[in-house]
Amino acid sequence: MLSVTCIAPVNIAVIKYWGKRDEDLILPLNDSVSATLSTDHLCTKTTITTSDSLTENKIVLNGKEESFENPRLIRCLEEVRKKADAANKCRKDILKWNIKVTTENNFPTAAGLASSASGYACFVYTLACLYGIEDQEISSIARQGSGSACRSLYSGFVQWRKGELPDGSDSIAVQLTPADFWPEMRIIVLVVNDMRKKTSSTGGMSTSVKTSKLLKHRAERCVPEHTAQLVEALKGKDFETFGKITMQDSNQFHAVCLDTFPPCVYMNDTSHAIVTLVHRFNDLKKDIRVAYTFDAGPNACLYLLEKDVPEVLATVNKVFPNDALGSPEYIKGIPVEVSQLPAADEQFCANGQNQLKYIINTRVGEGPKRLA
Amino acid sequence: MLSVTCIAPVNIAVIKYWGKRDEDLILPLNDSVSATLSTDHLCTKTTITTSDSLTENKIVLNGKEESFENPRLIRCLEEVRKKADAANKCRKDILKWNIKVTTENNFPTAAGLASSASGYACFVYTLACLYGIEDQEISSIARQGSGSACRSLYSGFVQWRKGELPDGSDSIAVQLTPADFWPEMRIIVLVVNDMRKKTSSTGGMSTSVKTSKLLKHRAERCVPEHTAQLVEALKGKDFETFGKITMQDSNQFHAVCLDTFPPCVYMNDTSHAIVTLVHRFNDLKKDIRVAYTFDAGPNACLYLLEKDVPEVLATVNKVFPNDALGSPEYIKGIPVEVSQLPAADEQFCANGQNQLKYIINTRVGEGPKRLA
Repeated sequence: MLSVTCIAPVNIAVIKYWGKRDEDLILPLNDSVSATLSTDHLCTKTTITTSDSLTENKIVLNGKEESFENPRLIRCLEEVRKKADAANKCRKDILKWNIKVTTENNFPTAAGLASSASGYACFVYTLACLYGIEDQEISSIARQGSGSACRSLYSGFVQWRKGELPDGSDSIAVQLTPADFWPEMRIIVLVVNDMRKKTSSTGGMSTSVKTSKLLKHRAERCVPEHTAQLVEALKGKDFETFGKITMQDSNQFHAVCLDTFPPCVYMNDTSHAIVTLVHRFNDLKKDIRVAYTFDAGPNACLYLLEKDVPEVLATVNKVFPNDALGSPEYIKGIPVEVSQLPAADEQFCANGQNQLKYIINTRVGEGPKRLA
Repeated sequence: MLSVTCIAPVNIAVIKYWGKRDEDLILPLNDSVSATLSTDHLCTKTTITTSDSLTENKIVLNGKEESFENPRLIRCLEEVRKKADAANKCRKDILKWNIKVTTENNFPTAAGLASSASGYACFVYTLACLYGIEDQEISSIARQGSGSACRSLYSGFVQWRKGELPDGSDSIAVQLTPADFWPEMRIIVLVVNDMRKKTSSTGGMSTSVKTSKLLKHRAERCVPEHTAQLVEALKGKDFETFGKITMQDSNQFHAVCLDTFPPCVYMNDTSHAIVTLVHRFNDLKKDIRVAYTFDAGPNACLYLLEKDVPEVLATVNKVFPNDALGSPEYIKGIPVEVSQLPAADEQFCANGQNQLKYIINTRVGEGPKRLA
């Protein structure tokens, strides 16, 4: 019997992935870029056990047994085994044993934070450790579980290159900067209260490719420009350009969602109130100090530098008053002393009460890791 | 002393105008198409008096005196006078007298319905009557007051051709179909409660032209396609295609607004709940029976055929319960017997109370008219 436990991080894109050129292999229409978030605050933890006495494959997700009859799960398993077989790093008979997967997120699934990226990254990385091939290129395997999972295999800022080959072997993630390259960078996740039924991102993406007349133009013309500018800004630690491109790319992704028929609407009035807050904050500073980005849901991720965290949090707390403010459960992650925050600028007014569920204050972090 | 009183209609675009190629002459980047709404329910009424005893130009808007020092107002006045002078239909000295303009809307400005289109159309048409040139091409003059005003000069469905000439003389409105061409067509305006500060459409449009990378593609590639398909559908009274293009063009316009930096957001959660209602209604009917379109604000305009009005209104009343339902002030326009409406489909659920201010039930109508 063999057993391996690993953790893998969540990632938040600053250049968004939206649209596949191959639904089966999960090949994207454009490159994307993300930051890997610290596993101290958000991660998936997966244990995989294999033994010749297991009569079938099993998976337990957050304490609940799920069906293994998931083609994406099966494909990831097969691909890792194929690679391990070719690499000859593992006894052939072990590759045939069934597996038992136990996986958990240290953040509530209800948070609306994409758990499929960290989930598939952790599954593929743990399998690779089990079979001794964790040092090989496995991002193209994780990609076949969930596209953005490939980006969760590296620390720091990561680019998913769309690739050109029909078999997808060049559609892989590469590290742009290590985790400690820009140590002042912070990410604040504002988890928004929302009642609406979610449109799955797989479904929305597929409808966008079929119906949006703007998506192709975005993928072919706009994203390559955004990516080049963002990578340049990252290398030069130019927050102003980094923040501007991040916001523009998020807005354009949601524009394409709205141009879909029927439209996919992920941001709500609270999300847009956060957008207004950010632009007003930056206007007051006459400089881009904080940038928003929104995935396929209403939650905001704010990118900013450590020095601006107190003032931004004070502004968020003023605009979004919350009964739970002050409780340690409301602002999670890197500790914040709420009573020590400065006063927010008087031009900001309070919105309705309790529009945010909670806040996560975190940083750029490391990739997957095997636990002892 | 001469005095003329006229009324002019509101129009609601189904192919949207967004973006100028010339800010001064108000020349658009793309064609647009609208329906002229019945003046029975929505109109501007303007009286212009001229006399050699008036010592200055005056304008009274909804009972309040406003400054005449408005370059757009002055330009419209000068252009009508120039045309009247050339046409020789009016005594030369009368063209030099000052004017007094009294103008009123029969709908609350707070409704968030664009009053500048009917306002400038009425101003230019009334002036043209005063100087005897109401039968000449005056839409290129109204356009210089407010772009979409040119479309309010004709009855039925109207196309504003963007034109090619630098002086804008070919950027004019033309009638596509007379008011009674498709007599079953109805328009239901859902006036949405909204607290947010409005972004002016002039400002938003100008920022979009400068910052949206999708706008040019929309104007050059998508709108010509939408327009051709819509005109064809209109001529063939093909509601399914008419409705689909109307919704897609509205969504794409708001997509471009979102792709603007900072983004312009005109629709709110209630607007999006109306979008969801419409798609669900059509899905149930397995056919496009009703189409939404949104201008630079949260209000929805629904296009539909008379036969579907009762069921659509019943559905709207179920999804948007209102304390004022049943009062004659809540559903204005063509009378509706609320107690006679059918039951809405059980799959529709109620949203929050009082999200709509009121409803206007109207039809396609006539252009401007001189009152006796």
